[in-house]
Amino acid sequence: MAASTAPTAAGANAVNLEQSFNNKNMSSELNNPTQQDVHFMNEAIRLADESVERGGGPFGAVIVKDGAIIAGSSNSVTLDNDPTAHAEVNAIRQACRNLNTFCLKGCVIYTSCEPCPMCLGAIYWAGIDRIYFANTREDAAAVNFADGFIYNELERPLNQRSLPIIPLLRDEALHTFRYWAEKTDKTAY
Amino acid sequence: MAASTAPTAAGANAVNLEQSFNNKNMSSELNNPTQQDVHFMNEAIRLADESVERGGGPFGAVIVKDGAIIAGSSNSVTLDNDPTAHAEVNAIRQACRNLNTFCLKGCVIYTSCEPCPMCLGAIYWAGIDRIYFANTREDAAAVNFADGFIYNELERPLNQRSLPIIPLLRDEALHTFRYWAEKTDKTAY
Repeated sequence: MAASTAPTAAGANAVNLEQSFNNKNMSSELNNPTQQDVHFMNEAIRLADESVERGGGPFGAVIVKDGAIIAGSSNSVTLDNDPTAHAEVNAIRQACRNLNTFCLKGCVIYTSCEPCPMCLGAIYWAGIDRIYFANTREDAAAVNFADGFIYNELERPLNQRSLPIIPLLRDEALHTFRYWAEKTDKTAY
Repeated sequence: MAASTAPTAAGANAVNLEQSFNNKNMSSELNNPTQQDVHFMNEAIRLADESVERGGGPFGAVIVKDGAIIAGSSNSVTLDNDPTAHAEVNAIRQACRNLNTFCLKGCVIYTSCEPCPMCLGAIYWAGIDRIYFANTREDAAAVNFADGFIYNELERPLNQRSLPIIPLLRDEALHTFRYWAEKTDKTAY
């Protein structure tokens, strides 16, 4: 999944993305966090506290590679006028800038709260290896963040959601994907 | 949900976010797209085509307010080394920069493909009113993007996912949310 300009079938890469996650959760040693894990999570919590102090949202996250923090951020939605600026998304963007890649394979994220669907999606797309979280989505709901509501919405069929989502011009759009599939000099991910 | 420094209970705002979506899907007129809807979707598809040409991903999106396009973007994951730079996320960031707000209430998004969980989450957080999409998540899977895989993962219980997600230090993190709940001069969302 590393950035590459070599001709690659998009398919091969996507399969790799899925395969890269397979069965990682089977390992029981994952459920025994180390002192280092505790240290990194405390840093995520510290960033969350600092954020509240500075007027940001109560969420922090750090990304670790080879035992070192390569990015740390907090929720800056209201400070930056960016609804996508959750702690995890900010940290992923920072880590990718620092490493000059769109793939964070080999990295672990420590976040002070269970990622919302947006952030969880971002973590999957980034290819991160493992997630540690402290507060739960229920804790977030208790202080009135909409994470739980959005999780519930995503599980519903499209026509039963509160936010209307309407199909339009599929036949006209399919050629873009054919164009993509046939392109030989693309960077897939 | 407009940006404000007035003291607000986080709760009030979150309830508003949920309520703002309620029952919008009941309206049958939503299923009769206008010529304007077709025009905006064609623009999203054009951006997707242009993106493939320039070496980006095969996805485009435009955001419309009061009948005018206020932002348009395409997928720049590999071009910008940013796994969060999907067309919808890019367009939301651009629209928020242009309007100087973190809330896109009153806006409609036209995207050339059904939003992935990350983008759908971002659309909910942005408070966008309505989504039109062309290609489906199945069409995306057919050209080997992992949207469907990630949707399936999100529906699984935490301990049955391919990507390990592990609780850690919840008790130590809860104070951040108490701090947030008690803060009177916060900007909630």
